[in-house]
Amino acid sequence: MNDLLHIVILAAGKGTRMYSKLPKVLHQIGGIPLVQHVINTAQSLQPASIQVVIGHGKELVQDQIQSPVTWVIQDQQLGTGHAVKCALPHLPKDGKTLILYGDVPLTDAATLKQLLDLAGNEVGLLTDVLEQPQGYGRIIRNEQGICAIVEEKDADANQKQIQEINTGILVLPNAKLEKWLNTLQNSNAQGEYYLTDVIALAVQDGVTVHGMTVRASHLAAGINNKLQLAEIERIYQAEQAKALMTAGITLRDPNRFDLRGTLQHGLDCIIDVNVVIEGDCVLGDDVHIGANCVLNNATIGSGCQIAPFSHLSDCVVGTDARIGPFARLRPNAQLGNDVHIGNFVEVKNSQIGNGSKVNHLSYIGDAQIGTQSNIGAGTITCNYDGVNKFKTTIGDHVRIGSGSMLVAPVTIHNLVTTGAGSVITKDCPENHLSIGRARQTNIANWKRPEKQNK
Amino acid sequence: MNDLLHIVILAAGKGTRMYSKLPKVLHQIGGIPLVQHVINTAQSLQPASIQVVIGHGKELVQDQIQSPVTWVIQDQQLGTGHAVKCALPHLPKDGKTLILYGDVPLTDAATLKQLLDLAGNEVGLLTDVLEQPQGYGRIIRNEQGICAIVEEKDADANQKQIQEINTGILVLPNAKLEKWLNTLQNSNAQGEYYLTDVIALAVQDGVTVHGMTVRASHLAAGINNKLQLAEIERIYQAEQAKALMTAGITLRDPNRFDLRGTLQHGLDCIIDVNVVIEGDCVLGDDVHIGANCVLNNATIGSGCQIAPFSHLSDCVVGTDARIGPFARLRPNAQLGNDVHIGNFVEVKNSQIGNGSKVNHLSYIGDAQIGTQSNIGAGTITCNYDGVNKFKTTIGDHVRIGSGSMLVAPVTIHNLVTTGAGSVITKDCPENHLSIGRARQTNIANWKRPEKQNK
Amino acid sequence: MNDLLHIVILAAGKGTRMYSKLPKVLHQIGGIPLVQHVINTAQSLQPASIQVVIGHGKELVQDQIQSPVTWVIQDQQLGTGHAVKCALPHLPKDGKTLILYGDVPLTDAATLKQLLDLAGNEVGLLTDVLEQPQGYGRIIRNEQGICAIVEEKDADANQKQIQEINTGILVLPNAKLEKWLNTLQNSNAQGEYYLTDVIALAVQDGVTVHGMTVRASHLAAGINNKLQLAEIERIYQAEQAKALMTAGITLRDPNRFDLRGTLQHGLDCIIDVNVVIEGDCVLGDDVHIGANCVLNNATIGSGCQIAPFSHLSDCVVGTDARIGPFARLRPNAQLGNDVHIGNFVEVKNSQIGNGSKVNHLSYIGDAQIGTQSNIGAGTITCNYDGVNKFKTTIGDHVRIGSGSMLVAPVTIHNLVTTGAGSVITKDCPENHLSIGRARQTNIANWKRPEKQNK
Repeated sequence: MNDLLHIVILAAGKGTRMYSKLPKVLHQIGGIPLVQHVINTAQSLQPASIQVVIGHGKELVQDQIQSPVTWVIQDQQLGTGHAVKCALPHLPKDGKTLILYGDVPLTDAATLKQLLDLAGNEVGLLTDVLEQPQGYGRIIRNEQGICAIVEEKDADANQKQIQEINTGILVLPNAKLEKWLNTLQNSNAQGEYYLTDVIALAVQDGVTVHGMTVRASHLAAGINNKLQLAEIERIYQAEQAKALMTAGITLRDPNRFDLRGTLQHGLDCIIDVNVVIEGDCVLGDDVHIGANCVLNNATIGSGCQIAPFSHLSDCVVGTDARIGPFARLRPNAQLGNDVHIGNFVEVKNSQIGNGSKVNHLSYIGDAQIGTQSNIGAGTITCNYDGVNKFKTTIGDHVRIGSGSMLVAPVTIHNLVTTGAGSVITKDCPENHLSIGRARQTNIANWKRPEKQNK
Repeated sequence: MNDLLHIVILAAGKGTRMYSKLPKVLHQIGGIPLVQHVINTAQSLQPASIQVVIGHGKELVQDQIQSPVTWVIQDQQLGTGHAVKCALPHLPKDGKTLILYGDVPLTDAATLKQLLDLAGNEVGLLTDVLEQPQGYGRIIRNEQGICAIVEEKDADANQKQIQEINTGILVLPNAKLEKWLNTLQNSNAQGEYYLTDVIALAVQDGVTVHGMTVRASHLAAGINNKLQLAEIERIYQAEQAKALMTAGITLRDPNRFDLRGTLQHGLDCIIDVNVVIEGDCVLGDDVHIGANCVLNNATIGSGCQIAPFSHLSDCVVGTDARIGPFARLRPNAQLGNDVHIGNFVEVKNSQIGNGSKVNHLSYIGDAQIGTQSNIGAGTITCNYDGVNKFKTTIGDHVRIGSGSMLVAPVTIHNLVTTGAGSVITKDCPENHLSIGRARQTNIANWKRPEKQNK
Repeated sequence: MNDLLHIVILAAGKGTRMYSKLPKVLHQIGGIPLVQHVINTAQSLQPASIQVVIGHGKELVQDQIQSPVTWVIQDQQLGTGHAVKCALPHLPKDGKTLILYGDVPLTDAATLKQLLDLAGNEVGLLTDVLEQPQGYGRIIRNEQGICAIVEEKDADANQKQIQEINTGILVLPNAKLEKWLNTLQNSNAQGEYYLTDVIALAVQDGVTVHGMTVRASHLAAGINNKLQLAEIERIYQAEQAKALMTAGITLRDPNRFDLRGTLQHGLDCIIDVNVVIEGDCVLGDDVHIGANCVLNNATIGSGCQIAPFSHLSDCVVGTDARIGPFARLRPNAQLGNDVHIGNFVEVKNSQIGNGSKVNHLSYIGDAQIGTQSNIGAGTITCNYDGVNKFKTTIGDHVRIGSGSMLVAPVTIHNLVTTGAGSVITKDCPENHLSIGRARQTNIANWKRPEKQNK
């Protein structure tokens, strides 16, 4: 832990231009709230404390963010300087404070460490260099470092040419912090206390302000509307795709890949176009995921083929399974090795043993299926009586005929065969043929319905 | 209405490089024929008249375009000058005429208004500035405005450096139009009358030619082949995505979003990757549309979750419904609030009441289902006798067992339960259990089939 | 055939940075192994011989590549010069040898022909001009042509400014080849023999080295990791999309289109977003393929509509068929004209005659269906007894009721109707109604199950 480092994250804004009932910092990038990204980065720096200043929608923020941070309430939105001031009671007189922003999600730890190192016990300010700096505060430097920030409206023609701009991310010595914050004025058009003004105070006090430019603009980019949210989402996804490819995953199109969580993987995994991965997913070696699949908290064994249009949630699949196309694995589907799940098949809260197959148009819910069993097309485990759910137990080497209704609770023992179209309501003893269907009659001289007048 | 403004849209070309049986102007951008875009923009200027000059495939064009325009037939393709001349009989002697092109779909009203204002009662010409102007007519300017257009083949080395080019979109004073058109010569390689040549005539007549450059090239970009069609399609889609995000919609990937029609929406709607929206769709507040969905004329109530791979057409969904994944709503599916439609379920021409559920592998067609009913997996409304369609009526709090065949016309009254695997051919009285299935027999010593020699 | 041209393809590398068990040259672009692309291009030049030098995973390479080439084994990886030397025994003393690379897949024949023409009987070297040439061997030119290649580590400040770099692709006169290769030294950090060093030897020998710059970098780009694999994949796909659009196909989004094989097509075909085409596919005229479809070796007749989310493999579809959404055609599905295959329907190894329809939730396997027949929702051909597959034969104008189980082998003759929910185990004579289901009973005073305590 870094005993002398404190971090304050400003997260009180409403985000008017998001046009949303949600507080701005709860909008998501990669499935994670903006402010959670910032907290995660802050935590990776192992600071002595993290204060998160919240205001708009503060209950929602506290509800959704479970990280062990200190919540600081800013009841009135009186500017960034005021926000940091709200955190002052939690900050000791020594050490330093790093200011981060709940709506700047992609700042990385490497950048922040570099800034902290550069600043030492003085002030460090993260800057960016933009081709179009209009609207941003320009960085004025002299030999000592940064000597001023000039806002757009105050900039002269020469200053407007400056492309280095203020990102707002800065580190300050706690010894000076209280004094500087108390000196801030709100004599501006907005009537707000701007944290940026501490730079001038530092210069006045003879404290060096070290400027460091980010290596890529998205590391310091804030999100104020849905366009910026989408832009940062795609940058985040592109970076994740790049990291996975560098580690050996084959992505058929990195621009059509979304990871909203974590993905562990073995060797020689191939992910086809337009796949979405959510939650914590794990792939073994040689897993192929077809086009347009959605995986959520899925663990897939080595050698599995997941065909296109498959939707897998909270499930575990053994090795060498064949899943899909058009397969749906729902929570607590647990599949053994060499299992086949075919098209238009749904599996929920069921165990399916090695080598068993459910190839067509079936619903397997609350079932336990043994090994090497074959479940015919159109089989349904009738697990629900309208209020209760019951279990279907199927043994090894069972052959369930097509169109069977298995009315749970029911046990179908090893080596049973059921006739196609049977409704199985009673247990089937081992090795038996179980059948429950009417006899076929062929009726001659059948007069077909005719088109009715309407 | 702008009494003095007349608009002529040139839409007679074949579009040889489209390699298509369809006349060029009927190819679509955003699901709308090219010429319809131009007519819509023309209409928004509220002109006194709109003439559309058609030739190749003129019947098809007239058939597909229902807007109230005047059709002008150009039987022979003798050039743009000749095309406008065909419209002359419909143009009064006063006012002005704006010339647009049926294969330049994205010209916007704002640009045209600006051009009209600039031109006043003289000539206005829309220009573009290209990095690579090769092949286009170059704009020669002097202090008065545009003094000439020099075609590529006639341009000297200096003129070839000019990057400002002629887009063809122009406004002309009707008082001069007839004279100028009659003066055009076809003494060129193609033997065509070029409208562009009126610029030289205007200059000769001492009429100022005001040039205005478009703010983005796509506003004046013509479509001559399928590459350009795709390029303009993506620009059009990107602009629509941008407008929706600006209005507050969250798009997970604006580059994987297609809107071919209109989308109304409330607050906090989230649209995941690769969704296609067609026709006129309406979303309430807090609607989440999962990856890879296709919606067509769908109205979705607030709080609905549409899971991935759902296909919804001409349907209405109440509030807080759960649809999909792999759900299909077909025309005249009308769902109440809190309805659940699950995987591999098709609903067509049916009403489903509040709180009812059809969760798995079912076909619901021509049915009326009450509230709080549960339709078991594998249920089918047998609505078709081969020539006629019949209605299935299901009451409130009904529990249809899995694998039930409901042979329409049939009524299942409130609080009925049907046994799994039943064929229901007769009405089911309220509160009854209706069952129609054979008794199960377990046969011992069953000898399984053996592998046959082939 | 070009009797004097020999081609050596270097394909022995492991590809450590691919993090894969597969030898590098077997990774795929557009569904084709990298080295197969190079062999295909080499073959198009009609050389007298093609030698492919293999080493790592040589058995796998020989196994997967069926082209008629001469395999040369390089047991030790001693550098590119050594690799070519391994091929020497197969090269005659006259003619010339073109050196290509198994991990540079997109070099095209036009470029190579130009290089061969330029080189004549001397040396030809393909170069590229990069904005960031760091790390590559720089090309030093004088009046005669290329006079040296300077590696990054040996380059002085001026040489480092040179942007023209060595691609490694070169053509050499066989008369000199053996001598030069035997002169190569391995006195470098890697202890390898570099083919590049022959350039210096050629200059020493007074043989002119003709340099030719590729028209686009991807033509000479090597693949060393999964990022480069993905980058080249997308370039390859973009070029294919461009070629198809130029030929008249409408692609709604060329950036969301993958072709891994060949696509023949007629006029006015439209392919919506996110479609994947594999194997050899053929489309007639006016075929519309909806969003998110996957086709593999599918032949689709004119006028067909393939709705979104359809998955077609190794099948033939007649004219004017309606397929999908959510349809699956599996190997040897053969559909006639005007056939309808609807949602959640799987067809495998079956013939379906003109005008027949399988619209909902069915499995048709090993079946022959005549013309104008209607297969009700939830119909299953029970083709498998657990070890054998049997055939279902259905005649013309048949109406199969919903939820029918057709237990093969079984024949349903012309004009038969089957009752909904029937299990058909015996042949159905022409014009009969066949029915096999239990009678419905309505039981009053049914006490519904209550919620059980757990």
